[in-house]
Amino acid sequence: MRKPVDYSLYLVTDQSCLPTGISLANAVEQAIAGGVTLVQLREKNLDSRAFFEQALQIKTICQAQHVPLLINDRVDIALAIDADGVHVGQSDLPADVARRLLGADKIIGVSARTVAQARQAQTDGADYLGVGAVFATHTKHDAKTVDIATFATMRAAVDLPMVAIGGINAKTLPTLQNNLSTAGVTADGIAVVSAILGAVDTRQAAADLKQSWLTYQ
Amino acid sequence: MRKPVDYSLYLVTDQSCLPTGISLANAVEQAIAGGVTLVQLREKNLDSRAFFEQALQIKTICQAQHVPLLINDRVDIALAIDADGVHVGQSDLPADVARRLLGADKIIGVSARTVAQARQAQTDGADYLGVGAVFATHTKHDAKTVDIATFATMRAAVDLPMVAIGGINAKTLPTLQNNLSTAGVTADGIAVVSAILGAVDTRQAAADLKQSWLTYQ
Repeated sequence: MRKPVDYSLYLVTDQSCLPTGISLANAVEQAIAGGVTLVQLREKNLDSRAFFEQALQIKTICQAQHVPLLINDRVDIALAIDADGVHVGQSDLPADVARRLLGADKIIGVSARTVAQARQAQTDGADYLGVGAVFATHTKHDAKTVDIATFATMRAAVDLPMVAIGGINAKTLPTLQNNLSTAGVTADGIAVVSAILGAVDTRQAAADLKQSWLTYQ
Repeated sequence: MRKPVDYSLYLVTDQSCLPTGISLANAVEQAIAGGVTLVQLREKNLDSRAFFEQALQIKTICQAQHVPLLINDRVDIALAIDADGVHVGQSDLPADVARRLLGADKIIGVSARTVAQARQAQTDGADYLGVGAVFATHTKHDAKTVDIATFATMRAAVDLPMVAIGGINAKTLPTLQNNLSTAGVTADGIAVVSAILGAVDTRQAAADLKQSWLTYQ
């Protein structure tokens, strides 16, 4: 039986965002100290061995702070390090295949930006949806945006936690909160990449976002 | 209990070698008809979903012809399609991790070009070694070459089948055979990429290589 997951401030990694001299391990540790509740290790440019070794290192940090660690795309890396789960996009292994390989106790997230994708993810056994990009983003250039009306339709269509992702930072967060509020829809959390990892003070950036988000709740 | 594996003519895929208008599925089918005894699906440029779908398709072909199919690098894809095993390089998941994830009954091959790598692979539970590049090759530009003296030292150091790989084609095969013979060392098979997949008549190319190789045995 899995513990409930706190999706409120979800850190997705991208090493290219890190300021010079800051290691990913150090940034993740500081981000968790600042209030990050869930971490996804996303490594699109590492070979499998380096990804595995990075994942082992980040797992040690997350485990010590009792924050779940998910692996982007690579179910084998998740199995190899006994991560808490995976996050799969529409170009990754189908969620039902990931579920079959990982078993019932692991967390599986799916990126969705249409109602059809959201429904399919629920059918496939997903635990939550990453929905976006809610704003245009520099960390994923090919990410298409999702408007709030679609977000609201997805919310009504499936019974899964929904995390907003894409271009969320201290400046855009109030807009997201206003838009959600106007549409009468809630999100279970926000996923953040560069607004935390690109900050000079990682811990403070996470703490500020956490406070802004909780104020909205 | 696994069946013994015939390593004599081992096809490693690279879609970029295919002549225009020939699908990988068709080429693999013809290569098996020509005498290929083992297939490794190597896809370095596909996303996970496309790799998975390609692997499912190639598995159907291999299974119908009773030829084992191994997956390069991606243990999760191998698990997802219930492939016969994986082939891992020195930058992929360690072989002992692959063994843990795949279980005792799957085939695990490891790329090795030093005695230390060969010994480690054996310790980690590998079933065979891919040794090369025995010649410079266009399909893997970063592959360093292995001389026959090293090949012979590896042969003496470990008790695993050894498949020669790298730049093997109808022209270079006699040189390899002469070099092995002069050094008094044998190989369990040859792994071939472009000499089969790049041929206009895939089946004939495989049949010719098979005949040359068996003549040497």
